[in-house]
Amino acid sequence: MKAFELPVYTAPEFSALRGMPEARVELAPKDGVAPEGYHAISIFPEYFHIGDEWLLAKESRMDCVPVYENGEIAVREFRHLKAGDRVICGRTEDGSEGIYVHVHGFEEAHEQNEAFSFRQGHSRESSFSRDYDQLYSLLRYEREHGRSVWVVGPAFSFDYDARDAFSRVIAGGYAHAVLAGNALATHDLEGAYLGTALGQDIYTMRHVPLGHYNHLDTINRVRYHGSVEAFIRAEGIDNGIIHTCEKCGVPYVLAGSIRDDGPLPCVYGDVYRAQDAMRDQIRSATTVICMATMLHSIAVGNMTPSYRVLADGTVRRIYFYCVDISEFTVNKLADRGSLTTRGIVTNAQDFIVNVAKGLGV
Amino acid sequence: MKAFELPVYTAPEFSALRGMPEARVELAPKDGVAPEGYHAISIFPEYFHIGDEWLLAKESRMDCVPVYENGEIAVREFRHLKAGDRVICGRTEDGSEGIYVHVHGFEEAHEQNEAFSFRQGHSRESSFSRDYDQLYSLLRYEREHGRSVWVVGPAFSFDYDARDAFSRVIAGGYAHAVLAGNALATHDLEGAYLGTALGQDIYTMRHVPLGHYNHLDTINRVRYHGSVEAFIRAEGIDNGIIHTCEKCGVPYVLAGSIRDDGPLPCVYGDVYRAQDAMRDQIRSATTVICMATMLHSIAVGNMTPSYRVLADGTVRRIYFYCVDISEFTVNKLADRGSLTTRGIVTNAQDFIVNVAKGLGV
Amino acid sequence: MKAFELPVYTAPEFSALRGMPEARVELAPKDGVAPEGYHAISIFPEYFHIGDEWLLAKESRMDCVPVYENGEIAVREFRHLKAGDRVICGRTEDGSEGIYVHVHGFEEAHEQNEAFSFRQGHSRESSFSRDYDQLYSLLRYEREHGRSVWVVGPAFSFDYDARDAFSRVIAGGYAHAVLAGNALATHDLEGAYLGTALGQDIYTMRHVPLGHYNHLDTINRVRYHGSVEAFIRAEGIDNGIIHTCEKCGVPYVLAGSIRDDGPLPCVYGDVYRAQDAMRDQIRSATTVICMATMLHSIAVGNMTPSYRVLADGTVRRIYFYCVDISEFTVNKLADRGSLTTRGIVTNAQDFIVNVAKGLGV
Amino acid sequence: MKAFELPVYTAPEFSALRGMPEARVELAPKDGVAPEGYHAISIFPEYFHIGDEWLLAKESRMDCVPVYENGEIAVREFRHLKAGDRVICGRTEDGSEGIYVHVHGFEEAHEQNEAFSFRQGHSRESSFSRDYDQLYSLLRYEREHGRSVWVVGPAFSFDYDARDAFSRVIAGGYAHAVLAGNALATHDLEGAYLGTALGQDIYTMRHVPLGHYNHLDTINRVRYHGSVEAFIRAEGIDNGIIHTCEKCGVPYVLAGSIRDDGPLPCVYGDVYRAQDAMRDQIRSATTVICMATMLHSIAVGNMTPSYRVLADGTVRRIYFYCVDISEFTVNKLADRGSLTTRGIVTNAQDFIVNVAKGLGV
Repeated sequence: MKAFELPVYTAPEFSALRGMPEARVELAPKDGVAPEGYHAISIFPEYFHIGDEWLLAKESRMDCVPVYENGEIAVREFRHLKAGDRVICGRTEDGSEGIYVHVHGFEEAHEQNEAFSFRQGHSRESSFSRDYDQLYSLLRYEREHGRSVWVVGPAFSFDYDARDAFSRVIAGGYAHAVLAGNALATHDLEGAYLGTALGQDIYTMRHVPLGHYNHLDTINRVRYHGSVEAFIRAEGIDNGIIHTCEKCGVPYVLAGSIRDDGPLPCVYGDVYRAQDAMRDQIRSATTVICMATMLHSIAVGNMTPSYRVLADGTVRRIYFYCVDISEFTVNKLADRGSLTTRGIVTNAQDFIVNVAKGLGV
Repeated sequence: MKAFELPVYTAPEFSALRGMPEARVELAPKDGVAPEGYHAISIFPEYFHIGDEWLLAKESRMDCVPVYENGEIAVREFRHLKAGDRVICGRTEDGSEGIYVHVHGFEEAHEQNEAFSFRQGHSRESSFSRDYDQLYSLLRYEREHGRSVWVVGPAFSFDYDARDAFSRVIAGGYAHAVLAGNALATHDLEGAYLGTALGQDIYTMRHVPLGHYNHLDTINRVRYHGSVEAFIRAEGIDNGIIHTCEKCGVPYVLAGSIRDDGPLPCVYGDVYRAQDAMRDQIRSATTVICMATMLHSIAVGNMTPSYRVLADGTVRRIYFYCVDISEFTVNKLADRGSLTTRGIVTNAQDFIVNVAKGLGV
Repeated sequence: MKAFELPVYTAPEFSALRGMPEARVELAPKDGVAPEGYHAISIFPEYFHIGDEWLLAKESRMDCVPVYENGEIAVREFRHLKAGDRVICGRTEDGSEGIYVHVHGFEEAHEQNEAFSFRQGHSRESSFSRDYDQLYSLLRYEREHGRSVWVVGPAFSFDYDARDAFSRVIAGGYAHAVLAGNALATHDLEGAYLGTALGQDIYTMRHVPLGHYNHLDTINRVRYHGSVEAFIRAEGIDNGIIHTCEKCGVPYVLAGSIRDDGPLPCVYGDVYRAQDAMRDQIRSATTVICMATMLHSIAVGNMTPSYRVLADGTVRRIYFYCVDISEFTVNKLADRGSLTTRGIVTNAQDFIVNVAKGLGV
Repeated sequence: MKAFELPVYTAPEFSALRGMPEARVELAPKDGVAPEGYHAISIFPEYFHIGDEWLLAKESRMDCVPVYENGEIAVREFRHLKAGDRVICGRTEDGSEGIYVHVHGFEEAHEQNEAFSFRQGHSRESSFSRDYDQLYSLLRYEREHGRSVWVVGPAFSFDYDARDAFSRVIAGGYAHAVLAGNALATHDLEGAYLGTALGQDIYTMRHVPLGHYNHLDTINRVRYHGSVEAFIRAEGIDNGIIHTCEKCGVPYVLAGSIRDDGPLPCVYGDVYRAQDAMRDQIRSATTVICMATMLHSIAVGNMTPSYRVLADGTVRRIYFYCVDISEFTVNKLADRGSLTTRGIVTNAQDFIVNVAKGLGV
């Protein structure tokens, strides 16, 4: 398998934009409110004409607004706007209002053609062989040079092999952050504490007596100890996804939802603070892999741009994978329109087992 | 079509429970933590032996704990426990620890047999004709004597007929509360304000120029006005689901999620406060209908018991419907094990159009 | 609702094709085998340059081969080729080999733009309100001027309302042929003969004693009588889809499959003869509606072109609907790439009930 | 991993059946028609009281009829009955009409309990780790002592890794027969002949020029050579599923369907003859694995009993797996009610890759 090579970014031909006006700036009228005619950001690199420069937004986020401050373009959620923030306005994308959206920066010739190819959707009948192989070399590359963020649904903690495989992927250095919810963490810790997930033995699937208490007992015990960390220490937890994150210092963000029991102590009850914590991980992500969760996948899809500006100024692609058994979910993410989004339609448990084998962990 | 008749509740034979011990009470050791061995509540009527009485929990909720206070049984989420709360402990259900779970209170003879019938699951190939007819007479009954709570996913606001049909169901008095999320309200208001949903004309489905700004413009405008109510008044909104709720005084609860843009001002950012607000509506619900939302359906399914104690002490059934195009979602809810849960596998837009026609609104 | 108007067909600009060579004809080397380089037909109108004329294939069928005989272009399945048949060869579509594929004959200006619109796929979240309204006026038009062929999966016969609604659609003159399989007919007849479908009462869904014998008893009884017609007469069958077809003289084709019990006497055991019988109905179809069957939908999709040449030489559109609860099936059909294909993602039982109400039958 | 052990069959306690009457025999009134009151076979071992013996049907098939001839019980499709065949009649299963259906012959104590366990359905969130491990040891056992029949849908031939993995499973001796359709064989041969499946490179997924001709060219070429075997030899085909079957002498049955192009020469056009050919393979099968095909899975599920009588008279279990990405398909098969049916909800391409790795081929 050949090593991964990052495609080169081609900046816009700024000469063609000569003579374009500067971007218009209006002040936010109130906290949390953008001025009329505000510009909303896409997933593509966007350049804003300010003074003599075309400034590229560095940490972008779709459907947020560009704010000019400190000589840079900050990309801000509506709810974080402050009255008086200098919001860039304009809804064209060709530079004619000082805003240039650069859609084709990463494309090679053949890709521009493929964009119009027949079978663009991903279905259960698509072939994913090459996607797997590319993913392995990408993950190896990111382990050394980038940052892979994994977004996981609760099904992972129900399956012995999947839980084990993902733990090894994390321990192997292939995950730089994990984003999930209360249920994933609860059932993963239940697996380590009581050997079950939702009351079933995680290997034999046999129901244990009173097993329907097990996730509640786990949550209650963690709450008793006051934190996941204290629970792990006090109860001698030595396996699982959350344990591996703690052991390896891999940050994880657990976002709350209205489905939750408990919750565990470290779960964000406020979903907008959860968004902020998730975006803090995404700001430096170079590959994002979403598995078996529509809610979290869409949330992360919304906050992941198609590019990242590295510390040295290099603009690179972000790779975004959505792995789900439902074409509906996969195509919903793929509809973002970016060539960097790959959908894989399969059972996420099988996916992660394959990935662990492919990475040799 | 014959009128709906409420099945009669058969209380347990308390004589058979004579000699059983009292329920054991332990104090919650900390805020938000139950004592070891706490009892967790099911969806069925549960009786607790205290002094000479078997007390029935009145406002029940699955996977919460019974707390004895003021001579009654309160059912409380773990997070709402206070240190010192008198939590009932014990994990048997037959009275031998003073806890009796009454599974068969509403069943008639034939139903006990049907519970073991072959085709229990609901699939796209099931026949739902009788379910529709029963639902119409149930909703007519509830309009006079009960309280119907509707739980709706965002797809409703994308479809002209569905949005219109549901508005008429509300205006007709068949909805006593609406539970939804930021997206439903946003796109419903977008439909009234700008005639689109996610930028497409809600009738012709044609994309309007710059339509991808429309939901953001709507949110921004509502935030500018400070509230949905002020927005409706100031912008002359005169149609849609949220408008009908406001006009008819039907309460609605909008729960936030990590997928949200905005959000709208009245959305609960804290999901556990959202749960509380949703449960406040469910406490008096007698029929619950969940449509096209896995997240909200499961959340509401978790907090809806199989019975309600009316003001006059009567114990009655709660009817719970889950309408979704995905068998996975429908069966997930139906797995709650109650005979009162009905699954309907269809497109929720078609469902509500049928219901509006069936109710003659 | 405004009446349906047939879009006008714009023939190719033949002047632009002046000077193009004649189409190349090669002889089929063996029965059932095309010559190397044969041309395969698309769903679009195709013109073949023979002598001084550009001949339009009249009864087209995708992935079949054009045969020049009797001064016309016949479109023939590989298996029906005879050694020596004069097959047109060439794989270009722009006239440069005497073959011109006319993709845009029916498009109006706005449609050419919409073809590139963002949300082309159909999902459970699409709005279908306008599709329903258009369908009603289309079906009214076809009742007078065209020929509507309905393709139905077995689920129809399981649901009381759906079976009844479709029977009324047929009796109302809105179906000119019905294509289905052994299971649809079996369970429909079981419903009339024994009041059940797969042993469940078709209205109450209650299992009847020994109900699992009912479909076998029905098949056995039809086989005993020798034909469906004789069975209907002898057993006094007076309701259902097949009964209505027989009564109204609406032809139906039942294709066999390896899943079948029985089969009923009139079922085609040979699937290629079944294809021929189905295509015989499709040759004159102007609207095709496929409901709740992937197998039959794809089969019919393969044999339905995008246009029909009427007796007076007019070229008109064929409308093709695919109604299914699975996005996978709907999008598989929609991938045929024709603007005349409409997908509706819903439970087909609800769909037909809506259609019957919309048509007022 | 511990080696597979065949569970022991417990014959009925015939002593408890003493005094039961003999089974009633009636003559078939016509060819293809059973007498009124015929008995229909289940998937379980069935014993028929004839003379002094309780005869076990050896080659059973659900929904067919038992015919007493030559001192044995033949199980026959309705269409194969001849006037005068001695059909056993009666619809009870407890011996009271001389027919005894033995449901619990293979169950161990713990299984009888598990049959009533909570989470019986299979969903995307089920854990399949143990199922995989059991399958590997089962397939190793069957390689030496049994006969594994694989039933495959067309998606297999679209994916490089899956096609390769399944070829290795066959070459490794783990497949004793393959049942499929025209499409699987066509696209598999297209992969070997032209390097594509439906015109896309099977590894890179890139569309090749005029690729939509490739499957037709493949079919046409096979038809030209007259047989798959002749095509393989003449065109130097050296890879793929069909090639491996031919090379290793593994029989394959290709059943036609109304969706087919072509067809290939060896495809059964008559589906009832196809059923017969498929059942000929199933008569000696001890494990059946259906992957990614609803049509073929249900067909084979219908013809596979839960047991096999070996040459030495031993009664053993048949294992039946259904692997599909759709819960609908998996649960449809699992609804057969046999404990020997296992459903695995995943992408079948990933499944076979996992199996090949698990078997070490």
